[in-house]
Amino acid sequence: MTDGIFLRTLKGEATERRPLWMLRQAGRYLPEYREIRKDHNFEAMSLNTDVAAEVTLQPIDRFGFDAAIVFADIMSPVRALGIPFSFNPGPVLEAPLRSRASIESLPTPDKAEIAPEVPATLAKVRAGLEERAAKAGTPRAGLIGFAAAPLTLACYLIEGRGNRDFPALRGLLLSDPALFGDLLEKVTSLTIEYLRAQYEAGADVVQIFDSWAGTLSARDWREHVQPHLSTLAEQLASDGIPTIMFANGAAHLSPLYLSLPSTVNQFCWRTDLPAMRDLTGAVSDGGKVLQGNLDPAALLAGPEATARAAQAILDRMPAHGHIFNLGHGIDKDTPLESVAALVETVHNESSALA
Amino acid sequence: MTDGIFLRTLKGEATERRPLWMLRQAGRYLPEYREIRKDHNFEAMSLNTDVAAEVTLQPIDRFGFDAAIVFADIMSPVRALGIPFSFNPGPVLEAPLRSRASIESLPTPDKAEIAPEVPATLAKVRAGLEERAAKAGTPRAGLIGFAAAPLTLACYLIEGRGNRDFPALRGLLLSDPALFGDLLEKVTSLTIEYLRAQYEAGADVVQIFDSWAGTLSARDWREHVQPHLSTLAEQLASDGIPTIMFANGAAHLSPLYLSLPSTVNQFCWRTDLPAMRDLTGAVSDGGKVLQGNLDPAALLAGPEATARAAQAILDRMPAHGHIFNLGHGIDKDTPLESVAALVETVHNESSALA
Repeated sequence: MTDGIFLRTLKGEATERRPLWMLRQAGRYLPEYREIRKDHNFEAMSLNTDVAAEVTLQPIDRFGFDAAIVFADIMSPVRALGIPFSFNPGPVLEAPLRSRASIESLPTPDKAEIAPEVPATLAKVRAGLEERAAKAGTPRAGLIGFAAAPLTLACYLIEGRGNRDFPALRGLLLSDPALFGDLLEKVTSLTIEYLRAQYEAGADVVQIFDSWAGTLSARDWREHVQPHLSTLAEQLASDGIPTIMFANGAAHLSPLYLSLPSTVNQFCWRTDLPAMRDLTGAVSDGGKVLQGNLDPAALLAGPEATARAAQAILDRMPAHGHIFNLGHGIDKDTPLESVAALVETVHNESSALA
Repeated sequence: MTDGIFLRTLKGEATERRPLWMLRQAGRYLPEYREIRKDHNFEAMSLNTDVAAEVTLQPIDRFGFDAAIVFADIMSPVRALGIPFSFNPGPVLEAPLRSRASIESLPTPDKAEIAPEVPATLAKVRAGLEERAAKAGTPRAGLIGFAAAPLTLACYLIEGRGNRDFPALRGLLLSDPALFGDLLEKVTSLTIEYLRAQYEAGADVVQIFDSWAGTLSARDWREHVQPHLSTLAEQLASDGIPTIMFANGAAHLSPLYLSLPSTVNQFCWRTDLPAMRDLTGAVSDGGKVLQGNLDPAALLAGPEATARAAQAILDRMPAHGHIFNLGHGIDKDTPLESVAALVETVHNESSALA
C-alpha cells in the first residue's frame, strides 16, 4: 500500500490535494466524544488506552481527516518525575519547582516508565488505522504522537498552574538562569525519551506543542530556550523521527521557530503562513513543510465564515508542502456544520491542483 | 516653575536623567494601598474621588516617581453606555454585545457623562502635585490620564469577560466585519471624549492601554483596528493632547504600533525597546519618545535581579527620549526593596549623562 497524502507531504512530495487535520480534533465539539466523556473524567480517559484510542479515531471516522493525533495530556510525562498534580480544570501542581534542591532531585526515568499508556494507545490506534485502510482499500491515515515543548512544560512546573505570562518562570530565569537551564535540560531529555517511545509504538511523526512559546522576548528565547529546542529536534532527526514544531502565541518568534531543525512548522492564527513560506522558500527549493493555520474562531462563526476563511488560505498559500490545519485547538462550542464546511472546502480544491 | 523631566521628555527635550514611573504603581504591592483596600472594594475605590486621588499619590510620596497615573479602571467609561457589569475579579458583563441590535442601540453619551469621577480625581491629584511641588520648590511631577484602546474595550464588550484569545471577538470579526467596525467606531468616539475630559481636568498626557493588542494577526489588525487607533491618536493630537500608546502582548505588531500618530510608544517586555529606537530613529532626528519596558518579573525576583535587569536596559537604550517604566503592571507580591533598587539604579545613572 502506498503512503497517504499526509505522509507523502511530510516527505516533501507534491500530492493530489492538501492533507487536513485539526488541532484538538478528538474533543468536546464531537457528540460521540461527549458521550464517552459523560462516564469518564479527562484524566481517566487519557489513562485508559481503549478509551483514548477510541476517541483518537472518532474524528477520522466522522470526517475522514488525513491524520490522527493521539489523545493524551501534555502533563502525562510529568507523572514519571514523581511530581503530584491534579486538574482544576487545567493542571495544578502541589509543589511548584522553584528551588535548586527540587530541580536537582528530579529523577531520570527510563523510556518505558514515561506515560506508558500513551505509546500503548498509539499502538492500538495504529492497528485501527491499518484495519480501516485494509478494509477500504485506501492508504492509511497518518498517526501523530506529541509532547509539550520544554519551555511549555517548564511553565507548568515552575508556575504550578496555567497563569497568563508565567511571572514565576520569568522571575526564575532572571534570578538564576543557570538553574532555569538545568530544568530545561532535564525536561528536554525526558521529552526526547517520551517521543522516541511514541515513535517506536507506531507514530509516524511527533508534534511538539509550545503552547506558551510567546512568554519571552526574542533575546531571552534565543539565549535560554532555543538551544534546548534545537537539541530536541536534532536528536529526534538523528533517530529518523520527523517532527512538527508548533509555536503558539509567539508571532514575534515565528522566523526563529522556522529556523529550528524540525521537519514541519505550525503557527497560531496570528502568524501569516504565506509569509513563512516566503521566508523558508518553496519545498522544491528545500523549504520546510508548513502546517496551519485557520483561526478556529472562523468555525465558531459558522459554516459560511469557515468556508470563506479556509478559501482565503487556499488562495494565498501554495499547496505543495502545506498541511491544512487550524491555528489553535477547535473550540468545544463549534458546530459540526462548520467542520463539514472546512472539509468540503479543502477537499474541493483538488480539482484545482495539477 | 519649569517643567519636570517627565514633561520635558514628552516634548522631546534631553533631560538630566531619565524620568521613571511604573505601570500599576498605585497598587497592592504598597502597604499604604492595602490599608485603604481593606475598607473598600476595588470598584468603590475608583468611584470615590478622595480615595482614588489618595492612592494615585501614594507611590509619588513613597518613591518620588516622575509621573502619577490616575487610579481608575479601564471599564469605567462603559457605565455611560448603560451596560451593566460587575467584577469577579475581572469585569463580567451581564449581556455581551454580539448582535447588530445591541451594538446599534448603544447611546452616544456627552463628555460630562463619561465616568465623571475620573476627571474629578485628576483635578484633585493635579492640585496635590502642585501643592507638593510648591512646598518642595521642585518641578511638579507629571500627571497621566488613561483609557483602554478600542480593541481592548471591544474584547470585554463582545466576550463579556477576560478570556485569553477572545474567540467570540475573533468570530464576530470574521462573520460580520462591518458590525465589528461599527462597534470599534462607537468605542473610539467614546474614548476620545473620555480622554478629552481627562486632559481638561488636568492630565498632561493620556495613555491608551491596548492590553489585548496581540489577539489578531497583523493582516487583521491593519485592516480592522489600525484605522480606529489612528483616528484616536490624530484627534487627540489635533486638540494638542499628547498620547502614550501601550501595546501589550503584541510583539509581532510592534513596528505597526510605532507607526501610529501617538506621541510616545510603550511595549511589554517581549519587545526589544532598543530595536524600536533603531526603527523610529533618534529623537533628535524626529524619532518618537519610547517608554518601558523592564520585565516586572525582575522585581519579583528581588532587588539584585532588579538592579541587574534595569542596568541592562540603561546600557542598551539611549537616554534621550526614554521614559523608564516596566513592561507590564507591577505584581502585587513585589517586595518594596525591589522597587527601591529600581529607583536607585535609574537615579544613579544621572552622573553618567551629559
